[in-house]
Amino acid sequence: MTTSPLAPACFPNVPDVPGVQLSTARSGIKYQDRDDVLLAVLVPGTTVAGVFTKSATCSAAVLDCRAKLSSPSDQGAAILVNAGNANAFTGNAGQAAVDAVCQATSTATHIPTNRIFTASTGVIGEVLPHNRITAHLNAMSNQMDAGFQAAADAIRTTDTFAKGATAKIVVDGTPITISGIAKGSGMIAPDMATMLAYVFTDAQIDQASLQALTVDACNRSFNAITVDSDTSTSDTLMVCATGISGQPVAGSDTFADALVAVLTDLAHQIVRDGEGATKFVEVQVKGAQSDADARKVALSIANSPLVKTAIAGEDPNWGRIVMAVGKSGAAADRDRLAIAFGDIQVASNGWIDPTYSEDQGAAYMKNQDLVIQTDLGLGSGTSTVWTCDLTHGYITINADYRS
Amino acid sequence: MTTSPLAPACFPNVPDVPGVQLSTARSGIKYQDRDDVLLAVLVPGTTVAGVFTKSATCSAAVLDCRAKLSSPSDQGAAILVNAGNANAFTGNAGQAAVDAVCQATSTATHIPTNRIFTASTGVIGEVLPHNRITAHLNAMSNQMDAGFQAAADAIRTTDTFAKGATAKIVVDGTPITISGIAKGSGMIAPDMATMLAYVFTDAQIDQASLQALTVDACNRSFNAITVDSDTSTSDTLMVCATGISGQPVAGSDTFADALVAVLTDLAHQIVRDGEGATKFVEVQVKGAQSDADARKVALSIANSPLVKTAIAGEDPNWGRIVMAVGKSGAAADRDRLAIAFGDIQVASNGWIDPTYSEDQGAAYMKNQDLVIQTDLGLGSGTSTVWTCDLTHGYITINADYRS
Repeated sequence: MTTSPLAPACFPNVPDVPGVQLSTARSGIKYQDRDDVLLAVLVPGTTVAGVFTKSATCSAAVLDCRAKLSSPSDQGAAILVNAGNANAFTGNAGQAAVDAVCQATSTATHIPTNRIFTASTGVIGEVLPHNRITAHLNAMSNQMDAGFQAAADAIRTTDTFAKGATAKIVVDGTPITISGIAKGSGMIAPDMATMLAYVFTDAQIDQASLQALTVDACNRSFNAITVDSDTSTSDTLMVCATGISGQPVAGSDTFADALVAVLTDLAHQIVRDGEGATKFVEVQVKGAQSDADARKVALSIANSPLVKTAIAGEDPNWGRIVMAVGKSGAAADRDRLAIAFGDIQVASNGWIDPTYSEDQGAAYMKNQDLVIQTDLGLGSGTSTVWTCDLTHGYITINADYRS
Repeated sequence: MTTSPLAPACFPNVPDVPGVQLSTARSGIKYQDRDDVLLAVLVPGTTVAGVFTKSATCSAAVLDCRAKLSSPSDQGAAILVNAGNANAFTGNAGQAAVDAVCQATSTATHIPTNRIFTASTGVIGEVLPHNRITAHLNAMSNQMDAGFQAAADAIRTTDTFAKGATAKIVVDGTPITISGIAKGSGMIAPDMATMLAYVFTDAQIDQASLQALTVDACNRSFNAITVDSDTSTSDTLMVCATGISGQPVAGSDTFADALVAVLTDLAHQIVRDGEGATKFVEVQVKGAQSDADARKVALSIANSPLVKTAIAGEDPNWGRIVMAVGKSGAAADRDRLAIAFGDIQVASNGWIDPTYSEDQGAAYMKNQDLVIQTDLGLGSGTSTVWTCDLTHGYITINADYRS
C-alpha cells in the first residue's frame, strides 16, 4: 500500500518509559509477513485510564476492558492487542475468545486476569482463532525488549504508516516521559474501522485523576477528528502511568498540556492517514452561542461530503460551508456569518467579502494543509476539529477492493 | 450529462389539474439552450401548504414564502421558480430580488404580492439578475399553456431527468387529480443542493388541513430520502388545492394516501437521480424501542459512507451495517440484532446467520434495487428511508469539475 502523501517524514524518536515493557509476535491470522500481536507489561502500581467507543454494538474486548477499569488495582497490568481479526459481532464466542486470551496472558505474565486489557482490530464477524495468539505468549513474556516503533507497527491494519508521539517534560525538577502509539485510517477495509491508542508515562498519578485527564484530553484530540463520520465498535484509548519517576502530577498543568499534545499529535496522524486523504484540514469555529454549538458546526463542516469533495477538488466553494453551517442544528444568523480560508476573508456579514477574489481562494486551496475558519458572530463558543478530504481514493479503498 | 442508470423509462403521463395554469420561459441566466423559469397561476380559492428547509442559513425566497403562508388568503396564488441562480447568501440584495420578482409577477398576473411564492435554485452567492426573469412575465402570463413535463424541465439544474408523478382517485364519487413535479439530484454542482417539489390538486380542502396532510406526507417521503446527508438552503415543497372539483377531502384517507404516494414517487425519483448513483436502496428498520430510534438507525445506515461505498462495490458487507447501527445513538443490543438483504437472512442474534453464505449475499448485491432490513429486536418502532450508493461518480461530479 502506498504511504499517505500526508505522512510524517519518519517515525519519531519515541523513548522507552520506565516501568513499561513491550514485545511483539507474528500470529499469521491475517498478515503473514509482519508482527501482528503486541504485549505490554506494566509494573505493579501502574494506574490505567481508558476511553472507549460509544457504539451500542461494541466489541467483546471493549466490554471487558470497561468492566475491569471500574475496579482499579495496584497489581500491575498487561495489554494484549492483535491486528487482523476484530473479534466483533461474534456472539458468545467473542467473550470466550477474550477470556481465553486474558487467561493465557495472565499465566505468562503472572498478572491477574482482572488486570489484562485486550483489543482486537481487523475483520469482523469471524471468530478469533485465539490459539494462534496465545501460543506466542510465553515466548513474548520472556523477551520484553521491543521499542515503540515495533509496537506501533504490530497494531497496524490498513494504516499506511506507523504512528507514534512523545513528550519530555519536567515537573518539580523531575523529568517525565510520555510516549504513545496509535493506529487508525478512516475505516478499515474490508470491514470495521478501529482507532486504537496506547499512551504510557512514568508519572505518578492516582487512577481517578488520570481518568479525568484522559477524558478531557481525548475530547480535545481523538474526539475532535473525523475521517468519514463512521464510528468503530472497537475504538480504544488507554493511558497508563507507571509512577516509576516518583513524581506526582495530579494538578500539574504541564503534565495535562503534554498529555493533550501527545494525544493530539497521534490524532492528527490518524487523519493524515485517512483513507484516500490528500489534504489535512483544520476546521475552526468561533462566535457560536456555546462551545457545544461550535462543535456541532465544526463537525457538520468536517463531515459534509460536499465540503470534503470541494476540498479534494481544490475548489474554494464557500457556499458549501454556508450550507454545512445551516444544517448543523446550531443557532446561526446568515447575516452575521463570516468565513475565512487561512488568512483570506471569504465572506462576511452574510455575503461574499468585498476584498475576496476567487483566484486568491483557488490559490489557497492548493495547499496540502488547510485552515477553514467560521465566525458565527453570535457569542463566544469555540471548537476546532480536524479532518481530511473525500477523494476517489476513499471510494477505491472502500468500494473497489472486490473488483 | 448522461441520464442516471436508475431513471424511469420515460416521463409519466401527468394530467393537467383544473384551476392550475403553467408557463415556462428562457431567461438565459445560466442555461442558454432551454427554459429555466416556471410560472404557475392558481385560481382564487386555492389553498396552499408548504414545507421548507430547516437550514439556519436559508434563502431569501424561503423566508418570504414562510412568512406569506402564515397569512392565508383566497385571492388565488402564483408560483415563480427560476433555475441557475439560487439567490442565496446574497445579503440584503437577496430579499430585494425576491421583492422585485414578486412585484413583477403580481403586475403580470393581477394576484396580490402576498400570494406570490418564489424559489430560486442554482449557484449561490451571486446576486439574482431579476430583470432577466421579470422581462418575461407579461408574455408568460399571456400564454399559460405549458404541461407538467415542460414545467418539470424548466426547474431542473443538474438533474439528469425531469421528475413528475400523478394520482387519480375518486372521493365520494368525484374524480380528483393530484399532479406534481420535483427537482433534485443530491447537491447541485457547482454549488448548493436544492430539492424543489410542487404538487397540485383540484380537491377542496382548507389550508390548515392541507398543511397538516402535507407535513405528514413530507415526513414519510421527502424527509425519508438522503443522498449525501447534506441539506440545502432552499428546499421547498408546496401543495396547492384549487378546489375546482368541488369535492371536500379533509379527513379522506384515500386523498391522504394518494398524496403520500405522489410525494413518495417524486422523492424516489430524486434518489434515483442522486449524483453518481448506480443503486437504489430501501433501508427498513424494525424492532426499535420507538419510531424515532428506528429513524436514527435508518438514517445512520443510509448516510454512512462505508455502507454506501460497500453497496457501490456490490459487497455484502454486513459488518458496516452493524457499525452504523452501533453509532446511531439509538438503543441497540448486539445480541438481538438481525440483518437481512432482501429475503436473505444475513445475521441473527448478534452473529452471522447459520444459513447465510457470502456467495448468496454477493449475488443479491448485484441487483440495481436493494432492500436492507435491520431488526433491533427491542420493540415495535419502525422506519423506512431511501438512499443511493456512493461512487466515483459522486466524487467526479463534486470534486473534479474544475479540473
